[in-house]
Amino acid sequence: MRGLPTDLPDNASFSHKMSREDTMSVILRRERGDLLHRQLFLALREQIRRGAYREGDPIPTEDQLCQSFGVSRITVRRAVADLVEEGWLEKRLGRGTFVKQTAAKPQNRTGSTFTESLAKRSKQTKVTVLEVSKCSPPPSVAAAMGLADDAQVMYASRLRSISGVPLLFIDSWVMPEYAGTIKNDTLEKRSITEMLLSQGVRFRYVTEEISAVAAEPHVAASLHVEVGSPLLCVARLVSKDVGKTVMYLMAYMTSERSRVVFSHEEQDLDRMYEAKLIHDIDAYDADQ
Amino acid sequence: MRGLPTDLPDNASFSHKMSREDTMSVILRRERGDLLHRQLFLALREQIRRGAYREGDPIPTEDQLCQSFGVSRITVRRAVADLVEEGWLEKRLGRGTFVKQTAAKPQNRTGSTFTESLAKRSKQTKVTVLEVSKCSPPPSVAAAMGLADDAQVMYASRLRSISGVPLLFIDSWVMPEYAGTIKNDTLEKRSITEMLLSQGVRFRYVTEEISAVAAEPHVAASLHVEVGSPLLCVARLVSKDVGKTVMYLMAYMTSERSRVVFSHEEQDLDRMYEAKLIHDIDAYDADQ
Repeated sequence: MRGLPTDLPDNASFSHKMSREDTMSVILRRERGDLLHRQLFLALREQIRRGAYREGDPIPTEDQLCQSFGVSRITVRRAVADLVEEGWLEKRLGRGTFVKQTAAKPQNRTGSTFTESLAKRSKQTKVTVLEVSKCSPPPSVAAAMGLADDAQVMYASRLRSISGVPLLFIDSWVMPEYAGTIKNDTLEKRSITEMLLSQGVRFRYVTEEISAVAAEPHVAASLHVEVGSPLLCVARLVSKDVGKTVMYLMAYMTSERSRVVFSHEEQDLDRMYEAKLIHDIDAYDADQ
Repeated sequence: MRGLPTDLPDNASFSHKMSREDTMSVILRRERGDLLHRQLFLALREQIRRGAYREGDPIPTEDQLCQSFGVSRITVRRAVADLVEEGWLEKRLGRGTFVKQTAAKPQNRTGSTFTESLAKRSKQTKVTVLEVSKCSPPPSVAAAMGLADDAQVMYASRLRSISGVPLLFIDSWVMPEYAGTIKNDTLEKRSITEMLLSQGVRFRYVTEEISAVAAEPHVAASLHVEVGSPLLCVARLVSKDVGKTVMYLMAYMTSERSRVVFSHEEQDLDRMYEAKLIHDIDAYDADQ
């Protein structure tokens, strides 16, 4: 996948871990072996791509995978679950885990397309529109967008959740010429990025910045964290061309629930990273 | 560039902004137009690559660039400064800015190699070795490395600074079989990654995770921030192969001084991002 999935997702899988028994409840489990299971995921995916296991064939059992890779059962389970989620493997009840028939098809090899994953992400999270208004952005945002301080833009504030667990608090500022469709009711159905892309707006440059900030009261309240607790903040500037800003977005998330993960395969250290955002809703107590 | 430059830098430029007049002092200036200047950087670099300006030719003046891209002078200056730093442009005193003679050479097109940039990074930052010891890692680290809780590894704690400004607090845990050269005096000269690579250790999988954490007292003291203030934490797991961990690293930095930036060129949203870490030592008061 590419880049950081917030409102403008990428083609990475959205790794929220739901209970298998009850997909509406939240597993209260959090582990620190995330990077290890990610590496096993990469290794197994590479084996499937290379054809080490053929379509429709079973993969080794959990025990065999634990032994051959020298990792724990929990690591194996999480890597396999991610491969199932990304469509490489499929579980057959009582029979084991198999390489999916379509897994080797080229169009599946690099995951789903950007637009597909965007639609998937929108469906996976429930969006609550907190505010939509025309306003002058804060000076820091105006500077980031290359605007005068008194320029008017469309502002939208949204919260994305899964199963009632708030994951992303998103502030967006959209240039007026692209903001025609941005309203309370349309935002509940589609992301801003989806709307812009469907209008044919070009995304020539997308730059992002990750920082850590202390939670302000209104963000803290929405994300159900204490005021002042550390939040990851992903800022994204989308431009049609240099100096032609389309939108600016700031997404806040708590590390208790969301992290950004990069994977780097192969020895070649000059290759680019894959980036992934993992939401750990497991760690969150829904009754909070 | 690729991945997050901490102890294991990439081939991105290390954008610390030193005063031109006195490279030992720190500019107390911080702006929010970072993403905008980054996009201009990408656009100009693309023009140089495509040969829009020939080697040795002058590029347009600041005024012309401001006008043609519709951006501010400060944005132009920062983009040009970064292109100079990365070796695409050169300033000639009193004459202007020119495309460097070597800029069009293929080996320069994608920036310096990983190993080159690694050496450069090591030189640019001053490392203070805080601790080197054999120990059992904390349970969370042991889990991340796939080790039993009582496993012994080599632990090193370091602080990387520029001009007395602390930027990165780095905890590292290295598997004993690779830790032979890791000592107080060797760590002052080379990064752990440089040492491992020169020993021929393969880095088959490198995975990273970014989170936001509250500064613990000893980290806060080293980074000169308040206890509990939000820090970016980059955790990195380096493996020879799946289940064969080489090292685990956690780098802490304050967003006041360091951020992680990703750039995405072109309309193709399925392409990978470039990632960049920018240290804003400008914002830091050295007398603190």
